[in-house]
Amino acid sequence: METITIKDIARALNLSTSTVSRALRNSYEINNETKKLVLEYAEKMNYRPNPIALSLRDSKSKSIGVIIPEIANNFFSQLINGIESIAYNMGYHVVIFQSHESYEREVANTNYLVSRKVDGLLVSLSSLTRDLTHFEELLDKGMPIVFIDRVPKNIDTHKIVVDNFFGSYQATEHLIKTGRRRIAHLTSPFYLSITMERLAGYRQALEDNGIPFDESYVKYCHHGGMMLTENETAVQELLNLPEPPDAIFTASDRLTTSCMSVLIQKNVKIPEEMALVGFTNTSVAELFNPPLTTVVQPAIDMGHQATELLIRLIEHPKKPTIFETRSLQTSLIIRDSTVEKSVNA
Amino acid sequence: METITIKDIARALNLSTSTVSRALRNSYEINNETKKLVLEYAEKMNYRPNPIALSLRDSKSKSIGVIIPEIANNFFSQLINGIESIAYNMGYHVVIFQSHESYEREVANTNYLVSRKVDGLLVSLSSLTRDLTHFEELLDKGMPIVFIDRVPKNIDTHKIVVDNFFGSYQATEHLIKTGRRRIAHLTSPFYLSITMERLAGYRQALEDNGIPFDESYVKYCHHGGMMLTENETAVQELLNLPEPPDAIFTASDRLTTSCMSVLIQKNVKIPEEMALVGFTNTSVAELFNPPLTTVVQPAIDMGHQATELLIRLIEHPKKPTIFETRSLQTSLIIRDSTVEKSVNA
Repeated sequence: METITIKDIARALNLSTSTVSRALRNSYEINNETKKLVLEYAEKMNYRPNPIALSLRDSKSKSIGVIIPEIANNFFSQLINGIESIAYNMGYHVVIFQSHESYEREVANTNYLVSRKVDGLLVSLSSLTRDLTHFEELLDKGMPIVFIDRVPKNIDTHKIVVDNFFGSYQATEHLIKTGRRRIAHLTSPFYLSITMERLAGYRQALEDNGIPFDESYVKYCHHGGMMLTENETAVQELLNLPEPPDAIFTASDRLTTSCMSVLIQKNVKIPEEMALVGFTNTSVAELFNPPLTTVVQPAIDMGHQATELLIRLIEHPKKPTIFETRSLQTSLIIRDSTVEKSVNA
Repeated sequence: METITIKDIARALNLSTSTVSRALRNSYEINNETKKLVLEYAEKMNYRPNPIALSLRDSKSKSIGVIIPEIANNFFSQLINGIESIAYNMGYHVVIFQSHESYEREVANTNYLVSRKVDGLLVSLSSLTRDLTHFEELLDKGMPIVFIDRVPKNIDTHKIVVDNFFGSYQATEHLIKTGRRRIAHLTSPFYLSITMERLAGYRQALEDNGIPFDESYVKYCHHGGMMLTENETAVQELLNLPEPPDAIFTASDRLTTSCMSVLIQKNVKIPEEMALVGFTNTSVAELFNPPLTTVVQPAIDMGHQATELLIRLIEHPKKPTIFETRSLQTSLIIRDSTVEKSVNA
């Protein structure tokens, strides 16, 4: 689609560009007849204001900062696409930063974004962030922040999460229904909101099905999957247990692929010897050997909703009395990595 | 690792923070003895200046803008990690933007980054960019720009590329050596530098092995892989040829995974009926069914080198008389998707 500019409108209507520009921003210097002419033509031609021009006009920078742990993670890259599609349509730029699961970098990114005068922040916490002062101070100063997915419990602002408990419950129950009894859980640091919720769902599903919870089947990877050796050690420890698991439920993207790699290296047959379910938005789950059963988060929709809430905070600066925490549903997509045990036994 | 701040140094040496700060930046207001004390202590404690503080002190913003087509592409996400590791160590922030393979967005991103006063740009062109005025104007104004991977032929600045010709030649020759004769090539728009070079390597390998080049075996996807239906149609057209190919060499990340998806859907057996080599940095090639033979680009090293060149341009603003184009080598990683034909026949 061709983009129509102010110049094009001016040429078509035989007006100066400055007249068109002032008419579009409803300036008192332009008479109503001209305004009507310009606005109708602009609408007909599907004119979209240029975000740069907008930002020069307003005092706002018309930009949103995004701080996420890692872009090379399918959930986060899809989330960013959701954020960008709404932001772009509403005339905002999106500035992306990675924390690389480091608290120090998260703080540095936050400070930089504030120094560059972004209008608001969308944040998913790094797995090593326990002190939240850098965000609390900003909120106190009136900076709009919306948290996504990995959210702080004790900060009062809008949050977009998924129903991690249910997603995890459903995955674990599926493993039980397909005949697994020794179900391990490979997850991120215990203090992350998503870890606690996913662990609780896993535990509840076990207990509801008469399987006692066994702490030795739970492995925490403190770098959230970023350190391959840590992930590999965790999987190896599970394989070395006196009664090794017959299924592993992995709680994130990288944990899932690392786990699958180790199982393949060790010639552990999936799903015959070990079923596998991953909490991952990988776009290539069906290309895997075997195709992988996944718990998928509505990442694009989460990006949309978080961005809409953030822009609402930016454009209506009166502090809302109630902040929302929206919890979206995950989907369990069943593939061959969890085929019924009896079929293979 | 704990970060030591100016405050910590001041406390330890019983000086004011402003004295420490001025000593660290070698101010004439501070005597040499104090300077020595502060510098030695800072070195001992591994003090690293905070990029924010640096940017407030210098007139520079201490930030680098990166414009790439898409972060959800393994090559680009690895490239960004290479960029960030050097930039961070040299005290620069990295601001990431996606063009989504759109010329319009690439121009908008460029304008925004310039309006936010970044010190330089690292760019990989969108697949729909043919007009380069937005970059030419910036270079004329003295903005340092280094292009990576998808580079413009007629702009004179530093460029980091890979030897696409050789990478492509090697992949095609490997397919010929494993017994394939009807080798198709699925690629991006013909006018991109990487497309032309990869096509030339493919063509040369065919001709050097006595296989005539056949245009009907080459499919161009004008959205560079972003439009799944376009990729799928291209693969389907290859399968519908009177003499369908016995191998497909795909020229990018998404083209590779789309192609593999279609082949699986259509029950085309890989590698028995169709061998597959992908020009992709996917981190999960060995998890695929079958594990995928890939041509891998040294993405992290490309990021390192491009960032070093850019920071040199930023910090030594005298225009160099000669710009470099560095060409790095790709690696062919052979996996089961190209197992010898005779073994399977």
